[in-house]
Amino acid sequence: MATGHQGPRIALDAMGGDVGPATMVAGAAIARKRNSGIRFVLFGDEAQVRAEVARHPVLADSEIVHTEDVITGDDKPSQAIRRAKTSSMGRAVLAVKDGLADAALSAGNTGALMAIAKLNLRTMHGIDRPALAALMPTLGDNDVVMLDLGANTECDARNLAEFAVMGAAYARAAMGLSCPRVRLLNIGTEELKGTGEVKDAAALLRTQTSGEWRFDGFIEADRLGRGEVDVVVTDGFSGNIALKSIEGTARFITDLLKRAFSSSLRSKAGFLLSRPAFTLLRGHLDPNNHNGAVFLGLNGLVIKSHGSADATGTANAIDVAVRIVSEDITRRITEDLDRFRTHAELPEAAA
Amino acid sequence: MATGHQGPRIALDAMGGDVGPATMVAGAAIARKRNSGIRFVLFGDEAQVRAEVARHPVLADSEIVHTEDVITGDDKPSQAIRRAKTSSMGRAVLAVKDGLADAALSAGNTGALMAIAKLNLRTMHGIDRPALAALMPTLGDNDVVMLDLGANTECDARNLAEFAVMGAAYARAAMGLSCPRVRLLNIGTEELKGTGEVKDAAALLRTQTSGEWRFDGFIEADRLGRGEVDVVVTDGFSGNIALKSIEGTARFITDLLKRAFSSSLRSKAGFLLSRPAFTLLRGHLDPNNHNGAVFLGLNGLVIKSHGSADATGTANAIDVAVRIVSEDITRRITEDLDRFRTHAELPEAAA
Repeated sequence: MATGHQGPRIALDAMGGDVGPATMVAGAAIARKRNSGIRFVLFGDEAQVRAEVARHPVLADSEIVHTEDVITGDDKPSQAIRRAKTSSMGRAVLAVKDGLADAALSAGNTGALMAIAKLNLRTMHGIDRPALAALMPTLGDNDVVMLDLGANTECDARNLAEFAVMGAAYARAAMGLSCPRVRLLNIGTEELKGTGEVKDAAALLRTQTSGEWRFDGFIEADRLGRGEVDVVVTDGFSGNIALKSIEGTARFITDLLKRAFSSSLRSKAGFLLSRPAFTLLRGHLDPNNHNGAVFLGLNGLVIKSHGSADATGTANAIDVAVRIVSEDITRRITEDLDRFRTHAELPEAAA
Repeated sequence: MATGHQGPRIALDAMGGDVGPATMVAGAAIARKRNSGIRFVLFGDEAQVRAEVARHPVLADSEIVHTEDVITGDDKPSQAIRRAKTSSMGRAVLAVKDGLADAALSAGNTGALMAIAKLNLRTMHGIDRPALAALMPTLGDNDVVMLDLGANTECDARNLAEFAVMGAAYARAAMGLSCPRVRLLNIGTEELKGTGEVKDAAALLRTQTSGEWRFDGFIEADRLGRGEVDVVVTDGFSGNIALKSIEGTARFITDLLKRAFSSSLRSKAGFLLSRPAFTLLRGHLDPNNHNGAVFLGLNGLVIKSHGSADATGTANAIDVAVRIVSEDITRRITEDLDRFRTHAELPEAAA
């Protein structure tokens, strides 16, 4: 893997996100130091990108492709699609389509990235919709894969069942699990709970008999972090709400603690003594340590880095890209879906 | 209010929840000590309830009504409905229907309580569905009212708009706000984001011109605790997921902190010094301090106490009941809905 020319080629949107080229390029440098086999193609304003690359000699062999246009957080997906050929985000995705890179990574507008990726890479054979999957921290030994995190606002039972198969394949590839435990997010664990879509998806998934993964029924949102499950499946609306509720609560508690510890001298002394504990806590909760959401179900790999990720977070997202490139996830998902459809008699999507 | 016979009469399901009569009766005693005007009717196993009441002389004038049957967490709503006349939960609700109590309170099965309450009290004129509303802590000065928290899995735009009006009336009554700020929970703040139901509900709410409350658009789940809004409206599926994600994350972080602080002697010393800070944190997050969810939209008041609430939590839920009884919330909701319908041309529910 570390022979240089055979290693993974990552197309990086150097402009997207809140942070800009300095952070994206610094992140690439960290990832490259960890894995000398990675090669980058950097898309963005050539002068800016070149200036940043000059600060990181390890990136000297990176290719830089000048793009005029940057897709911002305010651009609608429909606007972004029209600017695929001129924007840094669009060109990074097209590099994957054209076989010039093994994966594209952007910290920009999620909806725009999804739209450009879906239109240009197309969904895999038999997949109706791609899903956005990410790893979340738990109290157990493993992270948990959660999908969909906002790519699809409304999903039917068939979409959810496909997400389950894709999420299981991702868990096997990214976490090295032999038989991931898969659950559907619901508002109770009894069979009669939930929306029609969730109940129908559960009925489909119960027919699954592959040894590659296991459907374990429903999970409620307060159990997501307990390490009892490897893959959590939900529609993009609920997934976004769960993810943002978790992020918001973690920040809420951090703010409360800050306020509490600044309230008395005794607390301040306590805080200083407890610093190792808080470092551990922050390390576990820091979104940078869990950065890198993956669009599953496309003919090509596209990774979304968090819009406010720092250089370390960016490097972690690049690591995710490298791992799934080397694990050949697209082929795995295709095989798992074929097996599942045979058992579940799941109809293929209309082309 | 403290003259005895004129005070609020609370029908208490003394058996429901995970905790049983000892906690429910102890909670009633705490509430009674705070407000000598409250009178209780306690429904449950007479011997057990009488033994508990004997330990709290302040409750000596409470009425005890013997019931044979207890509705458990495993009972389906359809089974619970058939046992309304024999169970402690059912009899507490019927006491409200029959004018023997001003509000009923139970810590038992939420779905069962909702079903019994809806069938026996019926929804208010023009209301299609009741909603479960609760107060949640924020970093601001006020709590936030959130509804629906699980009573209605699937909601249309009209349901959501009605929840907004009911939630605003509740915020005015429970928090004394003159013009609560109301938002719809969504996965983005732009107009084009979200499900069809959410977008249609926003369109309806934008027509609102009453000075009693104000519709401020969408809110994302990571902003719920920031104190920027007084009422958050959502369907019961998303509401349950948001609430449980928040609860689960708070517990997750508490567990992480425990683990971190038990990892070294230095951390332990830090923890002891920081105890006041943690007490503040726990006080802010403890669900017992925010106990008491209210079913809005029924012809009669029913309060849900958390199944695992302690005596203090139970007393807090009783306080919520007392407050909304004295604020005449049913009349307020009726008036606000009439005004809203006039402006929004919202059709009344089919009877």
